[in-house]
Amino acid sequence: MPTALPAATSVNEPPLDPALLSQIESALADFLAAQDLPSNLRAACLHAVLAGGKRLRPILVLESALAAGGSVGDAMPAAIAIELVHAFSLVHDDLPALDNDTMRRGKPTCHVAFGEAMAILAGDCLLALAPVAAASAKHHAAEIQRELMSGTVRMIAGQVYDTLQGFPEGLPPARQVELVHHNKTGALLEASCRMGALAANAQHGALEGLTRFGKATGLMFQIVDDLIDATQTAEHAGKATGKDADLGKLTYPGIHGLEGSRAEIQRLRGEAESGLASLGSRGDRLRALLDFLATRTK
Amino acid sequence: MPTALPAATSVNEPPLDPALLSQIESALADFLAAQDLPSNLRAACLHAVLAGGKRLRPILVLESALAAGGSVGDAMPAAIAIELVHAFSLVHDDLPALDNDTMRRGKPTCHVAFGEAMAILAGDCLLALAPVAAASAKHHAAEIQRELMSGTVRMIAGQVYDTLQGFPEGLPPARQVELVHHNKTGALLEASCRMGALAANAQHGALEGLTRFGKATGLMFQIVDDLIDATQTAEHAGKATGKDADLGKLTYPGIHGLEGSRAEIQRLRGEAESGLASLGSRGDRLRALLDFLATRTK
Repeated sequence: MPTALPAATSVNEPPLDPALLSQIESALADFLAAQDLPSNLRAACLHAVLAGGKRLRPILVLESALAAGGSVGDAMPAAIAIELVHAFSLVHDDLPALDNDTMRRGKPTCHVAFGEAMAILAGDCLLALAPVAAASAKHHAAEIQRELMSGTVRMIAGQVYDTLQGFPEGLPPARQVELVHHNKTGALLEASCRMGALAANAQHGALEGLTRFGKATGLMFQIVDDLIDATQTAEHAGKATGKDADLGKLTYPGIHGLEGSRAEIQRLRGEAESGLASLGSRGDRLRALLDFLATRTK
Repeated sequence: MPTALPAATSVNEPPLDPALLSQIESALADFLAAQDLPSNLRAACLHAVLAGGKRLRPILVLESALAAGGSVGDAMPAAIAIELVHAFSLVHDDLPALDNDTMRRGKPTCHVAFGEAMAILAGDCLLALAPVAAASAKHHAAEIQRELMSGTVRMIAGQVYDTLQGFPEGLPPARQVELVHHNKTGALLEASCRMGALAANAQHGALEGLTRFGKATGLMFQIVDDLIDATQTAEHAGKATGKDADLGKLTYPGIHGLEGSRAEIQRLRGEAESGLASLGSRGDRLRALLDFLATRTK
């Protein structure tokens, strides 16, 4: 059974196990070092993957596996696979034809540092490497790869809905924002939890519970993001805020208001907690993570 | 045992089984129709996948499976998976930041028809869908997915070598062109044959033989392409020729001359044939395909 997580010292410091985080960093670096790649492509991939970041998705994979009675070792292939997908998505989203962002985490984005052609190819390479990493899973490797890539397709669909439309005809805005959020952010967070459970060879009940937890947590995560964007000063949120509204993007607070958004966050938090019920105290570390994700202010 | 293929009526008409081709077209259309995608993303994916093309890679998957004693049905998930990867690679290679091509097979390329943002995302989507398709394979699904994505990584590496360099320091040009060809074109053709063998649950000897066939055929295919580019008139080759030399690209004839290239094609053809030896008459259709690929002039 996993030990308790260190208590968060502030509302914006996630309660993460530093040992797990350092294992993730090593596994990512080792996996990329083992690939036979052109030197410039390798440099661009390393720039994208080892540039910091919260590692929320691999943490969810590992914590879900632990909660289901599995081991970190068995779940690590799935954990690094999902982070490779996340890194790919950031590289491509930053491209000039998409969000056209030049800085990320205080460093130049991939296309600024390596050129647009390389950023496209490095993103492609990270996406293709992800199922290669997942293929090493001891249990349910094919199912984990399918889960990973189905979640990735949904994430891409969410990015299309968010920036290029393509909604079913006549869909009301409240359903549109739900479709964007469930796909763009929710899909990979839900997939993280399911992949962890599969890697742990979890029994049906635990897989169902972690799926419910992941789905509710994923949607909640994005509504919290929207709320931060709508209410915080730029300094507090650590990035430009009010950007969504300026861009005319669909947001949860824009449709349901601030109070409606806060109520939905609480509802989803309860839903996520109920998914953990059957895990008993093995779910404690995921509960702590959920508390952080529900209350963070940046 | 597969029946004999129809005889090719000209050196440039591949000896393909029309029934297999029509099964591939249906399977691709059915798979894409079953995906839950935004309407505009679906249209861009269909534009990229159902725009014609020789379907050489899925044909190699299916013919390899048949040669190894398997069935078309068991190999179809792998066949459509590899064609999705091929379609992804064309969409991204055509992008303005890469080859900047505006027409393909007589139709506007994806980014011309749907915009650059959509072309990036549609390529990503096709790449992510490929292992989802392959996950339905009855035998060795995880291994087929790994083969597919490892081949894809090598193809991307080959594109980087070809257009952005990144070679190991001091590598002589003759080795550079081999690295480009083995990766950029050879990797997916070799993977096609291996995936077919795995899908057929082939015995070790057949898998080894088909791997040898696929590796030699893949490299030969690209040298034939180079030779056509270097020697044919534009009208005969069906596309602009001499383009490689104009771009200063590394080509096999550019380094080894026309005679050296022809000799290497014959050597690789023999190597590919020897890979089929242990399959006896079950390898006949792959032999016919090899003859076509070695002698085509466009």
